[in-house]
Amino acid sequence: MRVLTEYLWFNTAHREELVKITQRIEELVRKSGIKEGLCLVNAMHITASVFINDNESGLHHDFKEWLEGLAPHKPISRYRHNLTGEDNGDAHLKRTIMGREVVIAITSGKLDLGPWEQIFYGEFDGQRRKRVLVKILGD
Amino acid sequence: MRVLTEYLWFNTAHREELVKITQRIEELVRKSGIKEGLCLVNAMHITASVFINDNESGLHHDFKEWLEGLAPHKPISRYRHNLTGEDNGDAHLKRTIMGREVVIAITSGKLDLGPWEQIFYGEFDGQRRKRVLVKILGD
Amino acid sequence: MRVLTEYLWFNTAHREELVKITQRIEELVRKSGIKEGLCLVNAMHITASVFINDNESGLHHDFKEWLEGLAPHKPISRYRHNLTGEDNGDAHLKRTIMGREVVIAITSGKLDLGPWEQIFYGEFDGQRRKRVLVKILGD
Repeated sequence: MRVLTEYLWFNTAHREELVKITQRIEELVRKSGIKEGLCLVNAMHITASVFINDNESGLHHDFKEWLEGLAPHKPISRYRHNLTGEDNGDAHLKRTIMGREVVIAITSGKLDLGPWEQIFYGEFDGQRRKRVLVKILGD
Repeated sequence: MRVLTEYLWFNTAHREELVKITQRIEELVRKSGIKEGLCLVNAMHITASVFINDNESGLHHDFKEWLEGLAPHKPISRYRHNLTGEDNGDAHLKRTIMGREVVIAITSGKLDLGPWEQIFYGEFDGQRRKRVLVKILGD
Repeated sequence: MRVLTEYLWFNTAHREELVKITQRIEELVRKSGIKEGLCLVNAMHITASVFINDNESGLHHDFKEWLEGLAPHKPISRYRHNLTGEDNGDAHLKRTIMGREVVIAITSGKLDLGPWEQIFYGEFDGQRRKRVLVKILGD
């Protein structure tokens, strides 16, 4: 069994941002030399997400509007979590909807993705340094 | 390490449909000959889902109603994504709630599921051919 | 490839409860002797969840309020599933939001978690015995 472990760093310009990372993950699969296996990609922070969906800017706008409706940022006093001095109660909930992680099959040395599947880092409390873990296992 | 990779095709009669696939996955586990390992089952399309829940028709009705409340199909103009000519903005959001994938343990040559756990393909923009990936790894 | 399979039992005092299980999972990783691999932790019941987030009581209060808003327990008649005699239609939906499972990397013999990541068992229809599956694979 072969293994590759890598950490990707993010520091987004905005509080909320969706960043396509498919190519960076593909490069790591190549680097691993693994032909058949699994690739775990997960946010290491609890106000961020890794998810798979479409790379379409209208849809990304819809995601942000929809999440804001489900878990509004304001008023800050809406969330008991924010009594700790944080203002990111909403970000914990938004990331829960979007998911912490994806597990992707590796087949014949490549990410085995459908035609429209793209991997994204979803940031909901940005403008600080955060990490994503990539763990690739297989033969 | 042994590996099995298979693709299941779906073409649902209705726009939205929940299809039980537990037996098809169990057959693939048997075919793989793997006794101890992991089984990844994921939608390869971003308006469909693979999830685990109860095989109870009332609950499936509840899921559809609930998702329609959280991400209504109409009006189509509700979603910026639909400016691309699509009418499936809602399906991207519904699939996000239900999840892209499940990872299931294989123990003693079988899917290690709880008493009520059943695996479903969740279609939210159907009536076209779509795939599910099954990747089984282990010894 | 080495494998460890364990089942953790829960019987919560309240209908809804979030229980931190990080240490129990860490102990199982140690017990497995696996240095590099993957750790799957999943609820085996469809009204319970395993998820990763912050160990902060205000946030846990927010989670419960938020889930109650998205999928209210009452009136029981709200859910067709409850026509079966159950009163847990809401719990199936709440667990869907929170997720069935997490997959965690094992690096250098330890759970490779971010600074605030803690693993939780989320119970939404408790006061009965339920199980969580832990499957650890690697070298």
